[in-house]
Amino acid sequence: MGQKINVAVLGATGSVGQRFVQLLEGHPWFKVNELVASDRSSGQCYGEVCDWRVSDAMPSSTRETRVKALGDRLESQIVFSSLPGGLASTVEAELAAQGKQVFTNASDNRMVPDVPLVIPEVNPDHLGLIESQRRNRGWSDGLIVANPNCSTIHLVLALKPIWEEFGIEQAMVTTLQAASGAGYPGVPSLDLIDNVVPYIGGEEEKIEHETLKLLGTVAGEHIASAAITLSAQCTRVPVRDGHLESVSLRLRKKAAIPQVVEALESFTGRPQALGLPFAPERPIIVRPELDRPQPSLDRNAANGMASVVGRVRECSIFDVKFMVLGHNTIRGAAGASILNAELLHQEGYLTAS
Amino acid sequence: MGQKINVAVLGATGSVGQRFVQLLEGHPWFKVNELVASDRSSGQCYGEVCDWRVSDAMPSSTRETRVKALGDRLESQIVFSSLPGGLASTVEAELAAQGKQVFTNASDNRMVPDVPLVIPEVNPDHLGLIESQRRNRGWSDGLIVANPNCSTIHLVLALKPIWEEFGIEQAMVTTLQAASGAGYPGVPSLDLIDNVVPYIGGEEEKIEHETLKLLGTVAGEHIASAAITLSAQCTRVPVRDGHLESVSLRLRKKAAIPQVVEALESFTGRPQALGLPFAPERPIIVRPELDRPQPSLDRNAANGMASVVGRVRECSIFDVKFMVLGHNTIRGAAGASILNAELLHQEGYLTAS
Amino acid sequence: MGQKINVAVLGATGSVGQRFVQLLEGHPWFKVNELVASDRSSGQCYGEVCDWRVSDAMPSSTRETRVKALGDRLESQIVFSSLPGGLASTVEAELAAQGKQVFTNASDNRMVPDVPLVIPEVNPDHLGLIESQRRNRGWSDGLIVANPNCSTIHLVLALKPIWEEFGIEQAMVTTLQAASGAGYPGVPSLDLIDNVVPYIGGEEEKIEHETLKLLGTVAGEHIASAAITLSAQCTRVPVRDGHLESVSLRLRKKAAIPQVVEALESFTGRPQALGLPFAPERPIIVRPELDRPQPSLDRNAANGMASVVGRVRECSIFDVKFMVLGHNTIRGAAGASILNAELLHQEGYLTAS
Amino acid sequence: MGQKINVAVLGATGSVGQRFVQLLEGHPWFKVNELVASDRSSGQCYGEVCDWRVSDAMPSSTRETRVKALGDRLESQIVFSSLPGGLASTVEAELAAQGKQVFTNASDNRMVPDVPLVIPEVNPDHLGLIESQRRNRGWSDGLIVANPNCSTIHLVLALKPIWEEFGIEQAMVTTLQAASGAGYPGVPSLDLIDNVVPYIGGEEEKIEHETLKLLGTVAGEHIASAAITLSAQCTRVPVRDGHLESVSLRLRKKAAIPQVVEALESFTGRPQALGLPFAPERPIIVRPELDRPQPSLDRNAANGMASVVGRVRECSIFDVKFMVLGHNTIRGAAGASILNAELLHQEGYLTAS
Repeated sequence: MGQKINVAVLGATGSVGQRFVQLLEGHPWFKVNELVASDRSSGQCYGEVCDWRVSDAMPSSTRETRVKALGDRLESQIVFSSLPGGLASTVEAELAAQGKQVFTNASDNRMVPDVPLVIPEVNPDHLGLIESQRRNRGWSDGLIVANPNCSTIHLVLALKPIWEEFGIEQAMVTTLQAASGAGYPGVPSLDLIDNVVPYIGGEEEKIEHETLKLLGTVAGEHIASAAITLSAQCTRVPVRDGHLESVSLRLRKKAAIPQVVEALESFTGRPQALGLPFAPERPIIVRPELDRPQPSLDRNAANGMASVVGRVRECSIFDVKFMVLGHNTIRGAAGASILNAELLHQEGYLTAS
Repeated sequence: MGQKINVAVLGATGSVGQRFVQLLEGHPWFKVNELVASDRSSGQCYGEVCDWRVSDAMPSSTRETRVKALGDRLESQIVFSSLPGGLASTVEAELAAQGKQVFTNASDNRMVPDVPLVIPEVNPDHLGLIESQRRNRGWSDGLIVANPNCSTIHLVLALKPIWEEFGIEQAMVTTLQAASGAGYPGVPSLDLIDNVVPYIGGEEEKIEHETLKLLGTVAGEHIASAAITLSAQCTRVPVRDGHLESVSLRLRKKAAIPQVVEALESFTGRPQALGLPFAPERPIIVRPELDRPQPSLDRNAANGMASVVGRVRECSIFDVKFMVLGHNTIRGAAGASILNAELLHQEGYLTAS
Repeated sequence: MGQKINVAVLGATGSVGQRFVQLLEGHPWFKVNELVASDRSSGQCYGEVCDWRVSDAMPSSTRETRVKALGDRLESQIVFSSLPGGLASTVEAELAAQGKQVFTNASDNRMVPDVPLVIPEVNPDHLGLIESQRRNRGWSDGLIVANPNCSTIHLVLALKPIWEEFGIEQAMVTTLQAASGAGYPGVPSLDLIDNVVPYIGGEEEKIEHETLKLLGTVAGEHIASAAITLSAQCTRVPVRDGHLESVSLRLRKKAAIPQVVEALESFTGRPQALGLPFAPERPIIVRPELDRPQPSLDRNAANGMASVVGRVRECSIFDVKFMVLGHNTIRGAAGASILNAELLHQEGYLTAS
Repeated sequence: MGQKINVAVLGATGSVGQRFVQLLEGHPWFKVNELVASDRSSGQCYGEVCDWRVSDAMPSSTRETRVKALGDRLESQIVFSSLPGGLASTVEAELAAQGKQVFTNASDNRMVPDVPLVIPEVNPDHLGLIESQRRNRGWSDGLIVANPNCSTIHLVLALKPIWEEFGIEQAMVTTLQAASGAGYPGVPSLDLIDNVVPYIGGEEEKIEHETLKLLGTVAGEHIASAAITLSAQCTRVPVRDGHLESVSLRLRKKAAIPQVVEALESFTGRPQALGLPFAPERPIIVRPELDRPQPSLDRNAANGMASVVGRVRECSIFDVKFMVLGHNTIRGAAGASILNAELLHQEGYLTAS
């Protein structure tokens, strides 16, 4: 392709914002052109104001970039937003009204009826909502597409092939989530040295609600919720990156364990068909070992874009149980938004205003 | 009372053995008289051969005690066994045949039909098996009583009052277990720095099977299993002590959440009625905070002898869900055996041979 | 003795404030009568506003105590202050002017010339400064006595007997400090999972300066600094409680290692002579094992009031090197203030206004 | 260049062995041809017998490689050895006698007079010993070159430019070392959850002795030790990878801090001049931030081949102090051996037998 599309990152100095900057370095289609942060940082160089905490070095191209403030006029066509909830809602709508294509990692817009909540392998057809979104809001080129919560993404990636082949009635989930999910400074160290916190505010509801939309079907101008019930208990464990989830499923159809494994392993979707740059060859990797997946060993599978499943076996109460793990700030956040943008690009939704 | 009863500790240099020694220091009824370990240590002073790793100092009374070997003749009436599985079975039966009253923390004897598997607050009536045990085996004064696995104990303590009042059909459990459950050296540090291991060999089966016996009923010479189905997934997390369990229950009778909390909080049993020295005033402490129980803050509740429950709430799939936490080497192991011995003492089973 | 002396705790809801409340429970001489915190908490019950994070349960006696605001009139004779630096200076002086006897754990007053900076075993004679303090400031009964920084206390306890017997010219120190030293929320968990932070703001200066005063001599109205040079590098490690310090000393006189060990082990001071309630039998415990002291195993030695020294051996550059460890919020903070108050009580400085 | 040189990895299933396999994947000059492990594994596929614990996936090329036993005849010209101490000495000498060029990461041969102990940026001239090594031992093409201990490497990299420009009389060092330095299973998790172990057997001696040889000068058939005294205290901290060292230096010549920083930052050596594939552009990276280097953020600098220095400042006892950090299994072990082999290759020492 010819020229790269300019993108802006909102919340660029935060944890997820830094991931956007890191992951977009060298992207074949997109180029980080604008970095937007709080007023406090604006006007200064990104390299000075950003307490860079990704283990790879800060891309030298962004070091000298002047940080913009939230109200500043943006030139970029695409906006990746990692704004905090509450703030995100208004800002993102304004940008879309200006014709920007907004890919949001914030929770504000996820459950809004005319906002597609998308995992490219799971529900690319939900992009059909964009037409009514634009009509409803009077936007011509602008749009907002959301990606789910970090725990939801890896859960639903693992659910999708089983949902398609066997149907799922109920999913019981206990999560063991990494500290980076709360950003920086986030969780105090005294909460996670020799300790586990058995609660993450709002997380259980996100898993229980977002999944219904993700597995749901387009019904005119909204998504009809999927007929599945979830129950989640979320905990925070002393791990830097990588959310682990213990899952038990009641299926609609009988399924032998090897069939479930086969469904998981052979699963691919639209990103793989389109050959999107951030698409993992296999979205789900099934490990046969008894003691996998483990955060330290498996979170970087496929550059952090795959979900790793292990211990697939019969459940004595439901039908099948397993553990699923994935990187929470790559496929669970910034990488998810980027893959959404890649999908829309290839599907022809991204037209410069 | 007059003279204390002499007790021997088998496996005295191991993690649980050290807990026995620590907890029995100053016990009103029992006195550690003999320490038994592998041949390698025998004949030497306990203070020399034992790599003491309990945070309290080693009781000075045991420092100079000469360690005995497994084959050595024991004088003590009571034997607390923390032998490894496999070895325990034979040794414990031999000692019982010699008239010793054996309280075993090993897994070998737990599911043997004529061995009572006892949590004093849960199923003290199972001690009725002792009569047939002695008859079957031709023992006069000897006996073997087992306590359950460390995860099972805290789970079943929390299940018992709900089981009694509302009935339980199904229990889905995911555990987050502490490193000390695997003894020392146990789990390698590379497995638990920035990591979780989603597997503990044999643990899930123990939870799923032992619970059926603990909640079961005496049926002549064995225990009829309780009509409850469990499904467990066990993980090891970077915590020193304190197993945390995420539990969802399908009940037989409707129960409002405040009723469940009331059942848990008001629960007491035989140890409380008898005023046993190691009995916690309340076996179950219910915390109202959103983010409790936590291992570091709650594992020492009631000197490590209580189970701490939190986040009791409705389950969108089953009826009620909660988190339960307890100290795995105190109420989950050595303290459990000691409470069993106290119960048998007060119930008149302990008669010197 | 007859009636207990009423004490107030300033900063009662913070980490060190909670330690004061916990440690003073059941104290033979002192009774927690008033709890003082920020305006936000004042008027409410301590049990409601305090996010209690000490592993022992909150003393029931304080649960219903109404928290006072900083400006409120206090009735108590003794004030234990764990106010943050900056705020402490003014508030403590005002209270002393009102006749209160203030024992401060804050850094503000430590290096003020007429404020005794005291470790009871090290420099009880520095209390002589109180006379000039009162004269300078026009206080009759009021006084301020400070205890050192948490790292300094354990270092200087270990230095003192060596200083007395052999003299010390230089001390090179690298610390490995616990998270609780920064309070709560304090250090972010992402800084201490699989990580060490090689910097603690102001800590190195405190060690290098406070030691000179502690080992110094009363020279009229101030303390003449000791002739010793220190160089400190401070790090924060993933440990909840217990500061570990790697120390190398250049001595003035030749000393064989067994002599140094003997000096450390036989060391006692005024608190031991007076039999103060919080005085450890031996302020310094020397462990002979190669791999001690360790935070988890040794921080609670003598209820957290002892310093534990290990690996005493020759230094190939200086003369002797060793590791010293101690509990940073007990002997390193709240317990230090309490021991100071006990000392002053027995030495006759505490007279009701 | 044309065909790649075949290499064998001894101890291929261990921690460092796995690093060799990972790092050599795609190497421009070397190709892993043979994997050697204990008899237990020999004859089986590497993918089956190796419990792969590097976070990157096992190279597919080695998955099917049949593991050889230690006694088996090897075809490869180059041998990378990560054998345990004791065993290494004999095996490595036998292989060299057969004409193999052995690059050893084991401690056995490091201090042997005619074995070059080499860090390519520090003492490439020590390769001159190879001539006498071959003559002494009657080897024609075979040779043994050792790399230092993981802590020594990063220390000496940081010392070298200062040594050259200002001279160093004394170096006081306290290390905070990662768990992976002890291999797998290595350190028990109970030693490193909420804990530090202030002792690593043999480590202090290695640092104190190896440095003298590394900074020493070729004196005929051996290395004359450098005139520098070191004193080391070594601790193990809860970190997966990355050794951090607190260092204070007494210099021979006065040096202002900016001069020291300049010396460190501008330092390059033979590997940079030769453009060796594994040579970092700058062997030493100096971070200006107050709180760096940190293991999690800095250990992967320059793909784990650089030493990262921070907090360079005056020492109140000696002249300069700083913290240095480096990856202990990459530049501290496998990467060090590979860089040595690259150096010898370019210097013409590697001739096929």
